[in-house]
Amino acid sequence: MSQAKFIVIEGLEGAGKSTAINRVLAALSAYGIQDIEQTREPGGTKLAEALRTLVKQDHEGEELIDTTELLMMYAARVQLVENKIKPALARGAWVVGDRHDMSSQAYQGGGRGINAQTMASLRDISLGEFRPDLTIYMDIDPKIGLERARGRGELDRIEKMDISFFERTRERYLELAEGDKSVIVIDAAQTIDQVAADIESALQIWLSKESV
Amino acid sequence: MSQAKFIVIEGLEGAGKSTAINRVLAALSAYGIQDIEQTREPGGTKLAEALRTLVKQDHEGEELIDTTELLMMYAARVQLVENKIKPALARGAWVVGDRHDMSSQAYQGGGRGINAQTMASLRDISLGEFRPDLTIYMDIDPKIGLERARGRGELDRIEKMDISFFERTRERYLELAEGDKSVIVIDAAQTIDQVAADIESALQIWLSKESV
Repeated sequence: MSQAKFIVIEGLEGAGKSTAINRVLAALSAYGIQDIEQTREPGGTKLAEALRTLVKQDHEGEELIDTTELLMMYAARVQLVENKIKPALARGAWVVGDRHDMSSQAYQGGGRGINAQTMASLRDISLGEFRPDLTIYMDIDPKIGLERARGRGELDRIEKMDISFFERTRERYLELAEGDKSVIVIDAAQTIDQVAADIESALQIWLSKESV
Repeated sequence: MSQAKFIVIEGLEGAGKSTAINRVLAALSAYGIQDIEQTREPGGTKLAEALRTLVKQDHEGEELIDTTELLMMYAARVQLVENKIKPALARGAWVVGDRHDMSSQAYQGGGRGINAQTMASLRDISLGEFRPDLTIYMDIDPKIGLERARGRGELDRIEKMDISFFERTRERYLELAEGDKSVIVIDAAQTIDQVAADIESALQIWLSKESV
């Protein structure tokens, strides 16, 4: 059996990431892969979760500067990659991640408009050459995604943001996906069964190519 | 009167930074400068202080990766610079800082050996062209400095570290000071009165050159 892989699920709020993750877990399991670790970002270690809490909470009205948010996201990511993802892969466990670096590239780089040089430097500093083996990007029009998230009552934080932020984020996701063979784009606006079928067949093809 | 300035005091543990800060405050006050804000790093805003606490505490044995520490230091620094230092200078207040970017360059760059490219990139990303107007570096042999700090019972954390870490840190401090006209080096091994006299005369010369 070939070496363990790091698979990431990406997408906007309401894109169906949780459902996609469950499908991926089921497909890997059906493929005979038993040892699988799940991660979420930001978070996934004690310190990374503390950073997640800190970045999301209010600081008595103190403004969270965009660059600070970005640095904290990368601080959490370094802890997760070095203390959890790399050790898991090294001992042969597969890792399935709910978001990874592509989220920063899309949300902070695309949505918030942080410049490309800064985004590239921070990735180099924090991750070096470390990349996911496969990323499944769940593509959704933010109008539809946010409507879904609203239906689940998850919109306190999101409703404060402009829809154009999410449109810029989606645009960046699609740009990144286009130039990267390790990213599979799934049309997340389809029915749940169609989405599941697309994920499973894409994963099947990928696994056979990787000769896992 | 010319515009407000940002003055930073730097140095190893036990170099006498607190005493130096008090001397600088007294000298500025004697010079007729009334509106002075003090800062310390890491910290100085709600979020920056929370990051300070987080970087210093234990996370149930989770290793704090060097790059994570560095990213957290810069996250705290961005909050302090954007939310406190720049607004203070803009309204005409002078700022006297207990540590600033030179600490990261010396401790993380020199002491921990993080590469120069990473250090330069993070400074650019976080601070752009923002720099202190004057830095007073209190130079001390770490053997003497640590002995002084030990005498004050401040050595729990420090005693765990190798003396060579502080030697590398001091070496980097001196290298940085040599190439930078905005840094004044004070021999902190002298008596407290000699140190005070050196700080006051150096500051006097600088203030008159700046025609404050």
